[in-house]
Amino acid sequence: MTGKLYLLPNLLGEGDPNELLPTNVLLIIKQLRFFIVEDIRTARRFLSKVGMGVSIDTLTFYTLNEHTTAKELVNYLDPLKDADIGILSDAGVPGVADPGADIVRIAHKNEVKVVPLVGPSSILMAVMASGLNGQSFAFNGYLPIKRPERINKIKFFEKRAITENQTQLFIETPYRNNSLLEDIVNTCLPTTMIGIAADISLETEFIQTKTAENWKKNMPELHKRPAIFMIGK
Amino acid sequence: MTGKLYLLPNLLGEGDPNELLPTNVLLIIKQLRFFIVEDIRTARRFLSKVGMGVSIDTLTFYTLNEHTTAKELVNYLDPLKDADIGILSDAGVPGVADPGADIVRIAHKNEVKVVPLVGPSSILMAVMASGLNGQSFAFNGYLPIKRPERINKIKFFEKRAITENQTQLFIETPYRNNSLLEDIVNTCLPTTMIGIAADISLETEFIQTKTAENWKKNMPELHKRPAIFMIGK
Repeated sequence: MTGKLYLLPNLLGEGDPNELLPTNVLLIIKQLRFFIVEDIRTARRFLSKVGMGVSIDTLTFYTLNEHTTAKELVNYLDPLKDADIGILSDAGVPGVADPGADIVRIAHKNEVKVVPLVGPSSILMAVMASGLNGQSFAFNGYLPIKRPERINKIKFFEKRAITENQTQLFIETPYRNNSLLEDIVNTCLPTTMIGIAADISLETEFIQTKTAENWKKNMPELHKRPAIFMIGK
Repeated sequence: MTGKLYLLPNLLGEGDPNELLPTNVLLIIKQLRFFIVEDIRTARRFLSKVGMGVSIDTLTFYTLNEHTTAKELVNYLDPLKDADIGILSDAGVPGVADPGADIVRIAHKNEVKVVPLVGPSSILMAVMASGLNGQSFAFNGYLPIKRPERINKIKFFEKRAITENQTQLFIETPYRNNSLLEDIVNTCLPTTMIGIAADISLETEFIQTKTAENWKKNMPELHKRPAIFMIGK
């Protein structure tokens, strides 16, 4: 296995990768011919925008999603015998709130060099811009869908945020954002700090941190906007 | 307050910012004239490499570190009346394992627009490349220095990593890395997954994930190399 496994960043929405990603990352992407991707159509569109210098039809794509079997994953790494491979998410970086970790784990077992590249991550950018504790923070993925369990989980995160001074991040399917925010501000103490980061890196970017009490007076419209929610001290 | 507060990325070591940061980020940095920085000398060197198009002596710098008082912080935001300000760490991104959160919090209180920019973060890149769970992970900062407390904390993180399937990240002052790694591999169960990411984005980059048992057989030399440690399931 002489090839490297690159973890490629994708954008968080519309835009030109040539402006929004570092030059050295773009150079690496342009040299790759094998891609493991969440969605082939999205990947082709992204690589066309980057400008590969060769026809997109000459590239090889493997699909990585919840239906991909462990056996398929191992086969995806075959090209590493003499070529590099890139993993590409639909948005943001692979392996963080996105598929990719399983294949990276297999790569480490086979002593393949794994190389993470620089790009936008809504989780990281949300912590940076929240003003909440960034010396200790946790990303927790999705909350439970059923209301009683969801409320319990919000209480659990609030307690951990306060007792451990650890900022708690989570996400929701974008069409449920407004109802989640209502549950957050109605469940948390009035003085608890709540951060919201929506449409990160886009023109409509909205990032603010306020107490639950202050959010209640003026609730933002988050319907279908990709958002990160934060509870802090 | 019509100005924006930009959170600027710095590199994780030597290199050319013009290759390693996105073009749109470089354009924003070049337009700024006010900077809140961890260390003025390091900031001047970084901005010289970026190439500001004006003499570095015409720029205004404010120092942000553990000695900066709350009153000074408020004054630092004065230029926002009619100009933008950038916050710059010595390495990586502000507000994440670095100063910056306090001033961002003041900015939010004053309804200043806070804009995070894309750049390298060793924490994010470590999670991406570890193969450990990136759907749930926590950054915990530094471990206690005293050995018994440190061992207890490692046990605490291992338990949380296993029971919650939440990858636990932490850091150490680089000259203590080797001794920390010994404590980790000797404290954790032989089968626990330990990820190490050192010199991220540099030529000597080293990122591997193995069981505690397998690390013991072949311990890497981490002395004085910036490193992220991870315990996972």
